[in-house]
Amino acid sequence: MSGARVNAELGANDMDITNSSRHHSENLPYVHKVGVPPKQNLVKEFTSALKETFFSDDPFKPFKDQTKSKKVVLGLQALFPILNWGRDYNLSKFRGDLIAGLTIASLCIPQDIGYAKLANLDAQFGLYSSFVPPLIYAFMGSSRDIAIGPVAVVSLLLGTLLQNEIDPVHNKLEYQRLAFTATFFAGITQVTLGVFRLGFLIDFLSHAAIVGFMAGAAITIALQQLKGLLGIRKFTKKTDIVSVMHSVFGSIHHGWNWQTIVIGVSFLVFLLLAKYINRFLAFSFDLDLLLPPQGKRNKKYFWVPAIAPLISVIISTFFVYITHAERHNVQIVNHIKQGINPSSLDKIYFSGEYLAKGFRIGVVAGMIALTEAVAIGRTFAAMKDYQVDGNKEMVALGTMNVVGSMTSCYVATGSFSRSAVNFMAGCNTAVSNIVMSIVVLLTLLVLTPLFKYTPNAILASIIISAVVGLIDIDAVILIWKIDKFDFIACMGAFFGVVFVSVEIGLLVAVSISFAKILLQVTRPRTAILGNIPRTTVYRNTLQYPEAMKVPGVLIVRVDSAIYFSNSNYIKERILRWLADEEEQLKEHKEPEIQYLIVEMSPVTDMDTSGIHALEELYRSLQKRDIQLVLANPGQVVIDKLHASHFANLIGEDKIFLTVADAVLTCAPKVEQA
Amino acid sequence: MSGARVNAELGANDMDITNSSRHHSENLPYVHKVGVPPKQNLVKEFTSALKETFFSDDPFKPFKDQTKSKKVVLGLQALFPILNWGRDYNLSKFRGDLIAGLTIASLCIPQDIGYAKLANLDAQFGLYSSFVPPLIYAFMGSSRDIAIGPVAVVSLLLGTLLQNEIDPVHNKLEYQRLAFTATFFAGITQVTLGVFRLGFLIDFLSHAAIVGFMAGAAITIALQQLKGLLGIRKFTKKTDIVSVMHSVFGSIHHGWNWQTIVIGVSFLVFLLLAKYINRFLAFSFDLDLLLPPQGKRNKKYFWVPAIAPLISVIISTFFVYITHAERHNVQIVNHIKQGINPSSLDKIYFSGEYLAKGFRIGVVAGMIALTEAVAIGRTFAAMKDYQVDGNKEMVALGTMNVVGSMTSCYVATGSFSRSAVNFMAGCNTAVSNIVMSIVVLLTLLVLTPLFKYTPNAILASIIISAVVGLIDIDAVILIWKIDKFDFIACMGAFFGVVFVSVEIGLLVAVSISFAKILLQVTRPRTAILGNIPRTTVYRNTLQYPEAMKVPGVLIVRVDSAIYFSNSNYIKERILRWLADEEEQLKEHKEPEIQYLIVEMSPVTDMDTSGIHALEELYRSLQKRDIQLVLANPGQVVIDKLHASHFANLIGEDKIFLTVADAVLTCAPKVEQA
Repeated sequence: MSGARVNAELGANDMDITNSSRHHSENLPYVHKVGVPPKQNLVKEFTSALKETFFSDDPFKPFKDQTKSKKVVLGLQALFPILNWGRDYNLSKFRGDLIAGLTIASLCIPQDIGYAKLANLDAQFGLYSSFVPPLIYAFMGSSRDIAIGPVAVVSLLLGTLLQNEIDPVHNKLEYQRLAFTATFFAGITQVTLGVFRLGFLIDFLSHAAIVGFMAGAAITIALQQLKGLLGIRKFTKKTDIVSVMHSVFGSIHHGWNWQTIVIGVSFLVFLLLAKYINRFLAFSFDLDLLLPPQGKRNKKYFWVPAIAPLISVIISTFFVYITHAERHNVQIVNHIKQGINPSSLDKIYFSGEYLAKGFRIGVVAGMIALTEAVAIGRTFAAMKDYQVDGNKEMVALGTMNVVGSMTSCYVATGSFSRSAVNFMAGCNTAVSNIVMSIVVLLTLLVLTPLFKYTPNAILASIIISAVVGLIDIDAVILIWKIDKFDFIACMGAFFGVVFVSVEIGLLVAVSISFAKILLQVTRPRTAILGNIPRTTVYRNTLQYPEAMKVPGVLIVRVDSAIYFSNSNYIKERILRWLADEEEQLKEHKEPEIQYLIVEMSPVTDMDTSGIHALEELYRSLQKRDIQLVLANPGQVVIDKLHASHFANLIGEDKIFLTVADAVLTCAPKVEQA
Repeated sequence: MSGARVNAELGANDMDITNSSRHHSENLPYVHKVGVPPKQNLVKEFTSALKETFFSDDPFKPFKDQTKSKKVVLGLQALFPILNWGRDYNLSKFRGDLIAGLTIASLCIPQDIGYAKLANLDAQFGLYSSFVPPLIYAFMGSSRDIAIGPVAVVSLLLGTLLQNEIDPVHNKLEYQRLAFTATFFAGITQVTLGVFRLGFLIDFLSHAAIVGFMAGAAITIALQQLKGLLGIRKFTKKTDIVSVMHSVFGSIHHGWNWQTIVIGVSFLVFLLLAKYINRFLAFSFDLDLLLPPQGKRNKKYFWVPAIAPLISVIISTFFVYITHAERHNVQIVNHIKQGINPSSLDKIYFSGEYLAKGFRIGVVAGMIALTEAVAIGRTFAAMKDYQVDGNKEMVALGTMNVVGSMTSCYVATGSFSRSAVNFMAGCNTAVSNIVMSIVVLLTLLVLTPLFKYTPNAILASIIISAVVGLIDIDAVILIWKIDKFDFIACMGAFFGVVFVSVEIGLLVAVSISFAKILLQVTRPRTAILGNIPRTTVYRNTLQYPEAMKVPGVLIVRVDSAIYFSNSNYIKERILRWLADEEEQLKEHKEPEIQYLIVEMSPVTDMDTSGIHALEELYRSLQKRDIQLVLANPGQVVIDKLHASHFANLIGEDKIFLTVADAVLTCAPKVEQA
């Protein structure tokens, strides 16, 4: 980094008597030339642009100046962070991880069974997905707090997309095979994004769109649970609110089962009470985890909502078992296949028409899963102030899904609710995922028969109480306050999901996000500047009503890089400012505009269209006898102004370091005129 | 517009002794608060955003405060600009228009016949398209210099897209019908874009991409002419250079016809000589018309290249007629259908599978035609300093194509070469288009039999000499100089067209244009600022190596609005600047950073993700005992900082009007520490 250091105190004293403006009024035209940076080598320019785009985190920095063997070790450590933190692992850390691991295991087992249903898969596939993926992640992932496994939104999305292709009831095996194929490609997508460092692509889904999408998905998932909660047997396959409500109320007389409703609703009340009396956990379900957790003092009760689901399962299962409620049409889980994950490598479609379909579904599910996991990873990393490497994280998540797809798992990712519980329970490292994984393994090996009499209604209540946390009203209010356009994006995604389908909601979210970016670059802001009295500072006259315009001079600030997408608009907007101003001046019979100063500080870049627009502006102004003056063009811009000879065209002496300098040079001439 | 006016001279004198910094050192903390603009009403905010996006040219301004009948007149004048300028039309204007009209007619007739071939249509359709559309345009268009008719690039594009669907030789009628359908929808697309004021969409095709695309299309078209020029009968249908070259050299021994080659090449040489000896016309073929036309003094010879094509046609036709060269396998035009355009309303597909295909092709062709016409319109309007209303122009072009599609025309638009000739020949209004249209009409009625013996080779030479002008090497060199990324876009489009196909080239051009926009918003620039000695000005230390850093303070400027697409990157980039700086400081054993000042002048907007990123930055800095200080947040940003309570979080006294103010408040404390 260049630029020497100076004593600030001294500099500050100096400033008052010898500021740049003072200098100007003495030795016109000006003291400080606008810096023209040394010409950069083309290759260098390209490499640095590439580096900033794809390697902005400088991943190879530690590898520099190392021996070969050291590089291998560093490479392995980069791929398997466990080699790094594992060496400092000790018993006190394990204590935290053990408690956290047991807690999330108790939470994940009933959730897994329910989420598998959302994906139209048998219950054991949910458990499988909580066994293999967390193990792999523990070795490769860089987040210490994330809890891996199936999640509600991805399960719903996968279920919806898959059943568009294959009927999950009549073609069960094909459906499973397509699910594994999609999982495989979800993993491949994630690894690819990580390896090619394209992780920034997921940044294109805006926060607001995610909030809306998640809330919509939560509502949709909750509505789907009405089937289990009310004991309805014939239920629509569509997920939009109209179809579901039609289905629910259409079966009110001959479909609802009062025993089921009693069990389901009472446990739902219990679960929600456990969750909201202990309001301290509420913050943890927010996407928006950065607000200070008001209730941290209640941290010792974190286990209440965490184990409430398991307690509900145990009590209700026992109750059904002794009362034989299943004979009164209370639907139960029945059979969960016992035993460890079978291999599913041979089930993945590597050819045929389902290859393409699996690929497409996998890409979408993989991206959404990634978005959720990365958001969680970043949030908790920020809270504990450590770094999560986004690209490395994607490779870890991708690998775990690829391996998962070969061991009968479907898409797993980081779960908001379980990660929050993991964090609250005091996890220290990814070992808590290993603990959870082992508990799930034991469950698969020994405990599955015990779930036989678990009523479906309980699973529905557990899912409802879990997804309620995805509806983040505080975040929506904040979005409304901060940015109305964001709010539209949020609502668009929300209503898209609720009233049409998950895919449409997602499409709306992505489209609105893109539209916003495009709008932003097409219609940048411009402002008229005025002098803030008794300073050399020029500011937007709308923001600072006390700012005063300089007679005969119009100062316009362009608030964006000038690119092909906006160059024409900017040119016309500046001419419109000028026309409006001249009209006003004529009314008040004030002196005409002789100088147009364009404040270029915010103009960070320019392309050929931008240069053309400036040239056109220059010529239009020439015809009206108005001088074009530029203030403070940045490094890149001044470079291009010279390369295109535009600087020569308007004259080097029309380019100033500051607006104040430009005004001082123009204004005396205006006075004389 | 608010903001009072002040005597600049007085302000300037004041400045030296009482600038804002001086004030600060006396009465800390600061004098000028950062302006918080009055809260805008939501509806107002939305309307103004909508207005700026869609009605930035304020089209209804003249209608304000008018009587009803006056409004109707104004409305008609807006739709038919001829009602406006027609009233001032006089004989002297007509003289210019007559000469210009005759000149472009002589140029367009041979071009039309050739271009129709590019679109795989019979010759008369080219002439039809130079009769009806220019007439309509003359009444509705707002450009005075554009010459309307079929153009090379659109003809090629249309021909390629159409023959992908229907074989133009074996299913001639269906092919024609699909062509009219596409033309119809091209017109509808253009009208729609105009009416819904979505004209800015065509701004998304960057100048660089257009230059590359046009050059590629020119090469492709020229290569296609080798068929006519060499007299080859069996020719590939593909347009990529490899297939064409294969086809050309594969037929060298049994396909080339030496008589054809002699005629074609000698006239090509004549045409090119006529064109380039009169180098003065060269500029007019540039997309980049803004450079001063060096050769304007030769304007009186404009007619040489303009009528050279017609002369070639006459001479060669006469030559073929008397030598009966057609018996030696010299291919001739043969038959052009005599008579006025027949109706084709009943030929347009309004149902069936071709409806969708015609629609798709029409949208693409319509957009490209629009891009060309608008570029021409803007260029000449800038040269004569009048305004072309983009949206109105689209309605005019669209209407003319819709009507054209019903009168056996295919897509017409503004032609670069003919518009330049029109301009040089001294056209004053769109009447020159009417003159041309009448000449074409007479040709259709009377002269078509005379073209019977015109050799195809001559048409090929005329097309080659016309499209050569589309290759704008100067523009490419300028693009290379100004922006390397633009150069890649340009080359991408060029090679895409030349080596694959027009569609792929277009796709590449659009994709690269979009990629550039996305890259720009994902990876904005940031810079470290230093104090320029003896001023209160802070600038990029890379651009101004003399700028000095302030000890204990790091000043970072963020050069972009902070949105979801870049918020995370900006946060991490600032932290990386900090880490780099701290490392350096440690090496030199200098005082640690205590303040991080973020210069927000270029940050023109922010969304919820941006606020979150700032919050995360604030918390990260807090953990390192560094104070976050903001300088000069703009109107929108300060509003959102307050709405989100971020201003309260970091403290209102941490937000300053300028960097200098911020440094003055921070630096003394740093010294004491």
